[in-house]
Amino acid sequence: MTTSSPAPSPDDTPPGPRRRPGGRTARIRALVLDAVRAELGEHGYDGLTVDAVAARAGVHRATVYRRWTDVGGLLADVLDAAGADDWQPPDTGSLVGDLAALNHEIQDSLLAEPPVVAALIAASFRSTKANEAQQRLWDDRYARCEVVVERAVARGELPPDTQARRLLVAATAPLYHHLVILRTPTDPDLPDHAARTAALAAYAGAFATRPPEPRPPSTP
Amino acid sequence: MTTSSPAPSPDDTPPGPRRRPGGRTARIRALVLDAVRAELGEHGYDGLTVDAVAARAGVHRATVYRRWTDVGGLLADVLDAAGADDWQPPDTGSLVGDLAALNHEIQDSLLAEPPVVAALIAASFRSTKANEAQQRLWDDRYARCEVVVERAVARGELPPDTQARRLLVAATAPLYHHLVILRTPTDPDLPDHAARTAALAAYAGAFATRPPEPRPPSTP
Repeated sequence: MTTSSPAPSPDDTPPGPRRRPGGRTARIRALVLDAVRAELGEHGYDGLTVDAVAARAGVHRATVYRRWTDVGGLLADVLDAAGADDWQPPDTGSLVGDLAALNHEIQDSLLAEPPVVAALIAASFRSTKANEAQQRLWDDRYARCEVVVERAVARGELPPDTQARRLLVAATAPLYHHLVILRTPTDPDLPDHAARTAALAAYAGAFATRPPEPRPPSTP
Repeated sequence: MTTSSPAPSPDDTPPGPRRRPGGRTARIRALVLDAVRAELGEHGYDGLTVDAVAARAGVHRATVYRRWTDVGGLLADVLDAAGADDWQPPDTGSLVGDLAALNHEIQDSLLAEPPVVAALIAASFRSTKANEAQQRLWDDRYARCEVVVERAVARGELPPDTQARRLLVAATAPLYHHLVILRTPTDPDLPDHAARTAALAAYAGAFATRPPEPRPPSTP
């Protein structure tokens, strides 16, 4: 569920005319998107400019304007590039283990320094292009995570009619709520706690097509 | 959990020198904060200016600058004013009923037109003063909601060691996640579904001081 792909630093690439796979166009894109992430992490959306990105990437500013138009276009391409990676959710052998590992990834990405993922989410409130790209990325990430629920169904942990997306949102929403919206101090137990809570609800049938009416356990 | 208090429109107030309780200072504050909400709902944070607020409120701009300094100061005061109301969470007689009613209030406030609450949340990413005031408001609202859990404990629905804040965040986070972060199309069933999910998890002990290890129900 991370939105940043581990992009190699330009400094690490060997010299030569074809340092990045895909030729010059792909190489320029990688340089520019690395520069967007770095500028965004350092200065946030308000400090992000096409000119600063071009200078940092070592790419002519006319090239950047022609290909990405504006800051919104640059942000949208960073988000689209993140969605083109081969990320898969963790596979730990149990529903609660998979959800906890996923939540730890989310927490790590939201607390990473520089705060690129948090800045991308904040930018999505400002730029229509970034917002649309962020929505595509969310949808893609949650779709990839559905295999976590499919595996739990295959293991017999969950009934086949479990609504995967609802379960995944319930498991991950508390992380985003605390770290993006409430911006409360970090609770190191939250990733595991939210995972256990979602698993307990799932085992109680909360995400079945017809969830049961909640009834308090009878007191002895 | 709404962040807007139902403020009377200036047009509805009877004429006279003391149209608002609290005298001239309170009356000017009410006029200015009404104008902030109206400008924010119409134009969002990017269109919000001290001058436009002063003009709309019919208050001298020097007064607004002296008392609120800038847009951040105006937004923070709107949020602080929202926290000074007498809002209480719904009391329906059951945990799941209270949580569902609360979630419907949250959904209504986030989807309200003009989108004042959504704009305030977005603005809290931009202004340090608004962010601090928004955090105070969240904390106050969740603290007021803890009575929902206390009543459920008193009714014997939940064990006394239930962690109220965790339960309330789990119940409400999916609403904010869908409507503020993912910005997915509205699901009319989400408020009730998220309430039932949190109640099922609570009855399974998810918010106890030592929650049980989740175990899938044994297959027959």
